[in-house]
Amino acid sequence: MKLQEIASILGCEFGASDVEITGMNTLKDASSSEVSFISNSKYVKDIQDTKAAAVIINAALVEHLPSGCVALVVEHPYWSMAILSKYFAPAIEDENAAPAQIGTGTKISPKAELANGSVVGKNCTILANVYVGSNAVIGDNTIIYPNVTIYRDCKIGSDCIIHAGTVIGSDGFGFASNRLGEHKKIYQNGNVVVEDDVEIGSNTSIDRAVFGSTTIKKGVRLDNLIQVGHNCEIGEYVVAAAQSGFAGSTKIARNNVFGAQSGVSGHLEIAPFNTFAARTGVTKNVKESGKTFAGFPFMDHKTWLKIQGKLARLIK
Amino acid sequence: MKLQEIASILGCEFGASDVEITGMNTLKDASSSEVSFISNSKYVKDIQDTKAAAVIINAALVEHLPSGCVALVVEHPYWSMAILSKYFAPAIEDENAAPAQIGTGTKISPKAELANGSVVGKNCTILANVYVGSNAVIGDNTIIYPNVTIYRDCKIGSDCIIHAGTVIGSDGFGFASNRLGEHKKIYQNGNVVVEDDVEIGSNTSIDRAVFGSTTIKKGVRLDNLIQVGHNCEIGEYVVAAAQSGFAGSTKIARNNVFGAQSGVSGHLEIAPFNTFAARTGVTKNVKESGKTFAGFPFMDHKTWLKIQGKLARLIK
Amino acid sequence: MKLQEIASILGCEFGASDVEITGMNTLKDASSSEVSFISNSKYVKDIQDTKAAAVIINAALVEHLPSGCVALVVEHPYWSMAILSKYFAPAIEDENAAPAQIGTGTKISPKAELANGSVVGKNCTILANVYVGSNAVIGDNTIIYPNVTIYRDCKIGSDCIIHAGTVIGSDGFGFASNRLGEHKKIYQNGNVVVEDDVEIGSNTSIDRAVFGSTTIKKGVRLDNLIQVGHNCEIGEYVVAAAQSGFAGSTKIARNNVFGAQSGVSGHLEIAPFNTFAARTGVTKNVKESGKTFAGFPFMDHKTWLKIQGKLARLIK
Repeated sequence: MKLQEIASILGCEFGASDVEITGMNTLKDASSSEVSFISNSKYVKDIQDTKAAAVIINAALVEHLPSGCVALVVEHPYWSMAILSKYFAPAIEDENAAPAQIGTGTKISPKAELANGSVVGKNCTILANVYVGSNAVIGDNTIIYPNVTIYRDCKIGSDCIIHAGTVIGSDGFGFASNRLGEHKKIYQNGNVVVEDDVEIGSNTSIDRAVFGSTTIKKGVRLDNLIQVGHNCEIGEYVVAAAQSGFAGSTKIARNNVFGAQSGVSGHLEIAPFNTFAARTGVTKNVKESGKTFAGFPFMDHKTWLKIQGKLARLIK
Repeated sequence: MKLQEIASILGCEFGASDVEITGMNTLKDASSSEVSFISNSKYVKDIQDTKAAAVIINAALVEHLPSGCVALVVEHPYWSMAILSKYFAPAIEDENAAPAQIGTGTKISPKAELANGSVVGKNCTILANVYVGSNAVIGDNTIIYPNVTIYRDCKIGSDCIIHAGTVIGSDGFGFASNRLGEHKKIYQNGNVVVEDDVEIGSNTSIDRAVFGSTTIKKGVRLDNLIQVGHNCEIGEYVVAAAQSGFAGSTKIARNNVFGAQSGVSGHLEIAPFNTFAARTGVTKNVKESGKTFAGFPFMDHKTWLKIQGKLARLIK
Repeated sequence: MKLQEIASILGCEFGASDVEITGMNTLKDASSSEVSFISNSKYVKDIQDTKAAAVIINAALVEHLPSGCVALVVEHPYWSMAILSKYFAPAIEDENAAPAQIGTGTKISPKAELANGSVVGKNCTILANVYVGSNAVIGDNTIIYPNVTIYRDCKIGSDCIIHAGTVIGSDGFGFASNRLGEHKKIYQNGNVVVEDDVEIGSNTSIDRAVFGSTTIKKGVRLDNLIQVGHNCEIGEYVVAAAQSGFAGSTKIARNNVFGAQSGVSGHLEIAPFNTFAARTGVTKNVKESGKTFAGFPFMDHKTWLKIQGKLARLIK
């Protein structure tokens, strides 16, 4: 899509030389053929170093753009970004892609559906009513139980087990809102990458990234009914018990352990090798390792136990 | 079904003139061809104005009935109501209805099942392993991802997106219990109505109403793994993040925002334009607007922050 | 499988007379043709009475074994047990079993899949995209809504209703971890038994047992999005509202009632006829009956209300 066409869609003036735009991305990650946007003042520091071809931006911030980066000046950049995201959304299924490729030794139920463009490795088992979307790729020796849905463009490693009813690659929860309280969908044009040796329980939901990938790294163990928001990175060998949830863009380093019904807020970074008791609500970055936390808002587990003791004495 | 037959099923005396009964409903909403019931003293005030043809009732309350309304006198009205509900339950699938009607431009996977009597509008996309029940109606331009189940009689609007694994119209959690601790199912003979421009995440459950409709109004955004109980009304443009839950019969006015893992008790009314932080547990009606709440039991967000500070100091 | 072969897999010395081993089990429940293990000092008391043919064990504990019981001495018994568990895992589907048996009056959607060896009773309704695994057994008059998955070897009683998207028999959350933080799957070779007259909501997950059965007893009512961990026993007529969770090996006696978003820790025993308010987190055994609990950690409901009052006054 030409940059001039984008300017026209967004109702911006356009006087620059035209270029082909291949997608959208954050200020930090955009390439010179992508459009970015700035809608939150905390990202202003990222403007000057962006490599984006163009940025959807308020007039007041234009002066911060690096030279050669085109300003797409609008009143509501987040809303405009949402409008534009739809134009980069791929078709739900890629009907023109080649039929699914299936490795030797792989068994696929006739009641499963592998969309065009999907690729399944060797010695996999794919049971009834599984759906594998266009251009999704599955490694070797992976077992996918019935009624699992894998959306288009997602990647599943080798030696994985995905239990029934789990959804990988549903849209992240993203939209812009206007002053009337209406919402405009931000198309989630990224994917999910599940690395090797991962087991995911039943009825768990892992959302695709808005840009880039939601990542479940090697050796992770996720239980049932877990939520993983868009653009999360769940580190190697992380363990999360049932009904826990990870809000969007949070990075969990390796070997953290989360008890049942725990939750982690969005945009956090959690250092490796910690334990979070059941029901912990993690509200801030964790920089230490080797600790045990509990409570909401979360605190050292021993402190939490002391507070419970104090509360019990309070009422006597 | 004749009223005399109903009296016979419930083991009641019957001396009135017979009429045809078409269904069951609450005292407030019953029409003159419906049977109602009174099982909870807080609804006594509704007896005198009911238009119901007959009411399942304890002997002690019969005097409150309006003239012309037949008393079906039983010892345990709620249990008797549960018994009767089964007789008004439609077949699971309406095999005699016409084959599904499908609008122009709509793509339906051959692995989806549209039960007889269902109607799908124009330019929809219905992916593999979706089930659409008898007499369910879907508007135009709606996308339904794989492994979604829409039960019979439910209505989905236009321009909606429903992500994989979501269930719309499963039975509300209703039963009567006797003194032996046994349970008798109350058949959930209502439906779910999802209005236009609604997006629902993956693995979410929205229960059908016992009578009438569970309603998801225009522009709502529901994330993954959310519970919406029977007879809820989720107002226009409401936003609810993952793993939140709404207990039965609660009415949420427009543009409320619910954080992840929050919950709202049953039979509440929440005024518009409030924000509920993650994990908030809403236990009472909210009459204000424009506020932010947190905690369980919930309180003003600032108060909650103060209490957390006090608790932290308590243990020093 | 021969015991000598097992010793060889685990790298143990083996000088005993060989026997055929049919499975693995706990010290308490192992028969004389099964292998057991001891990996947690709290089970040392169970060693002396075990009937197991052999026990995977640390050198230091060998002296406690009863005479005739073979010691399979390893450094990390839990890890070795995990390795061995894979050898007793049955095939995902039993392709050589007889085609599914279906009782008279039962309606099965052509889009459902009944694996070889499964048995369905009379007058059942099995809707589209349901999967019933090998050797699973379903009683009479049971209704299974679309997109339900029942894993192999599970048993569902008569007069049950299972709502859409629910998963029965996914693997319990079990693995051993080594000092590098890597995980080894413990194959879950047990099953789930759902007795008669049980209703299970939509998108609920009930895990199969590691050994023996996860049991949902007669008359239970489970709502939507509930987690039942491996080896739980949910007693007769128990009621659990949406998004509640039961961690592994917990035994809930009859007629307990759990509010929405409540949770019970693992390995607990809960006496009958109690009520747990919404969001209660049960952290210890409950020996009383007829009480109402709330809070996390849980306490008497009245105490919890008092503490909330104190907290409210704290900030004034």
